[in-house]
Amino acid sequence: MAKTRTTQPSLSPTLADVSKQAGVSTATVSRCLNSPSQVSASTRDRVMAAVKDLGYAPNFGAQALAAKRTNTFGAIVPTMENAIFARGLQAFQEELGQHGITLLVASSSYDPDVEEEQIRNLVARGADALFLIGHTRTSESYEFLEKRQIPHVVAWVYDEAEPRVSVGFDNRKAMKALALEVLKQGHRKLALIAGKRDCNDRARQRYEGAMDAVAEFGLNAQDLNVIETTYSIANGGDAFERLMRSGTPPTAVMCGNDVLAAGALSRAHRMGVDVPGDVSITGFDDIEIAEIVTPRLTTVHVPHRAMGKHAATTLIAMRNDRSLGESVELEATLRLRGSLGPAPQKTA
Amino acid sequence: MAKTRTTQPSLSPTLADVSKQAGVSTATVSRCLNSPSQVSASTRDRVMAAVKDLGYAPNFGAQALAAKRTNTFGAIVPTMENAIFARGLQAFQEELGQHGITLLVASSSYDPDVEEEQIRNLVARGADALFLIGHTRTSESYEFLEKRQIPHVVAWVYDEAEPRVSVGFDNRKAMKALALEVLKQGHRKLALIAGKRDCNDRARQRYEGAMDAVAEFGLNAQDLNVIETTYSIANGGDAFERLMRSGTPPTAVMCGNDVLAAGALSRAHRMGVDVPGDVSITGFDDIEIAEIVTPRLTTVHVPHRAMGKHAATTLIAMRNDRSLGESVELEATLRLRGSLGPAPQKTA
Repeated sequence: MAKTRTTQPSLSPTLADVSKQAGVSTATVSRCLNSPSQVSASTRDRVMAAVKDLGYAPNFGAQALAAKRTNTFGAIVPTMENAIFARGLQAFQEELGQHGITLLVASSSYDPDVEEEQIRNLVARGADALFLIGHTRTSESYEFLEKRQIPHVVAWVYDEAEPRVSVGFDNRKAMKALALEVLKQGHRKLALIAGKRDCNDRARQRYEGAMDAVAEFGLNAQDLNVIETTYSIANGGDAFERLMRSGTPPTAVMCGNDVLAAGALSRAHRMGVDVPGDVSITGFDDIEIAEIVTPRLTTVHVPHRAMGKHAATTLIAMRNDRSLGESVELEATLRLRGSLGPAPQKTA
Repeated sequence: MAKTRTTQPSLSPTLADVSKQAGVSTATVSRCLNSPSQVSASTRDRVMAAVKDLGYAPNFGAQALAAKRTNTFGAIVPTMENAIFARGLQAFQEELGQHGITLLVASSSYDPDVEEEQIRNLVARGADALFLIGHTRTSESYEFLEKRQIPHVVAWVYDEAEPRVSVGFDNRKAMKALALEVLKQGHRKLALIAGKRDCNDRARQRYEGAMDAVAEFGLNAQDLNVIETTYSIANGGDAFERLMRSGTPPTAVMCGNDVLAAGALSRAHRMGVDVPGDVSITGFDDIEIAEIVTPRLTTVHVPHRAMGKHAATTLIAMRNDRSLGESVELEATLRLRGSLGPAPQKTA
């Protein structure tokens, strides 16, 4: 019972305790845990009974001696609060599970200092390899990863110029493609509700992609009204309302992700603004909410599951075979749905 | 700054802290604790006041325990794929962060065997304490937690009969209250799209709550058409479509959570079924999607953030002071919104 946590804490049972109770050598216990097929069934049963009975959990020190790996990988994502990284993580975890590897996840709240602490912590806790999001982090984080030779893969971005192993897509190209669709629909009064760009290369690249499209249509940077905010439904709604109440409301509001777009759309309903009749709204990510709002969101479909799966197989190879790993560019594709329509006709 | 991981004195007060506060040498503090008769009454009073004030635990076991701390807590949630546990986890993490504690999260895919493995793994990785969801898990998991004396708190449920420390709410009572509202609107052909009940006490209790309401209105169990499925948008949609295409379609579809309800609502749109004109739909959880769908979901507001925060402070106390912890019941409240309306008039 939980409440009976009374007297002296029992010391953590050791490999030696298990060996004593099972009446076998510590080497045999170790073999049982790491290469069970090399041990007879009866010995294995005896050892596992002792393991269970004592509540022995092979600690990373002992296991490091035995196998130099913990079969635990770490992932650090900027947030778990909305579903942005959820499907990718799920696919990553499923693939790891196929290989008997457990995943531990930490979230950094988009703060590079917090992320650095979490990298150190996960490595201290014995993580064999790390899954990270984006290229922007403290130089100390990278130095630490080098020094400790921790295999790591960066996801959600792909940039040829970056030397690090990444499994992702070109955020800039994808946002440019979406913005071109918006422009082709006749929209010239544009706005972008962007994520905070300073510590987030995805937000930066999406912003640049929108600017690329604007330039390609011979417009100026001023033709794109940019509001920067942190990702949340409420912030998307607030930014949208500010834009619509300004002197020159846009006819199309592109959003840095689906969470902001869902917030904008929901606020449009509340304000009695018709989407896409009065204003078009677009997202980015194609998470589940994109399809359950009305009208459904035009957005960029991010290859969530493919990234997670590829990142897992790449990381496993990097750990097992000391492979250097290879970056993979995956495709992000447009999803044209009801929230994007032609620019409203000018009224005389 | 996150980088200055300052050790809060209140977390693990030392002999030196006591000596400083009492204004005596550490040797005197030690003498006070071990041979009080050798110390003057006034000195003894001063030292014991400091001991009490600081929450110093003067036994070697506690000291050993404190020395072994990693300042890392673990959380195991059934899923990270949708936002059900996200806001609670976020609040949990924020509170831990205030105390310099890092959070590592694992997700069990609602599988008790996977959860057991993750409990062992997190403890092996040095987790000081664990945050778990619901009471249903393998007996081996509980035995392991007992044996290793790992402080743990169970969230998302509250049940007086359960001896374990939980921070949650009464799922049964909350679902009953919601179902009573549905019945009061005149609905008599009811359906419930429930989560899988076998390894999920929240799903079980919500089902029971719906049954309680049905019984209270003098209806039979058969008046509630129950479909059990795993939580996903697609599954909610499929179950809804099956119900609506059956010989006796319901006029109200209650869902085990908002994810299922959002799927049902989205499918209703696609099928041309008016909500709530033709059929009412309700959810459970009040996660963000409940407010961005059209019409907005009538649902049960779960105290996500309060649970996370309370669980954190409880767990910290359990670890620091060897407190036994105390269960807390929080309130879950109804949110009546557009997706619930009166039962349609019978056509002649």
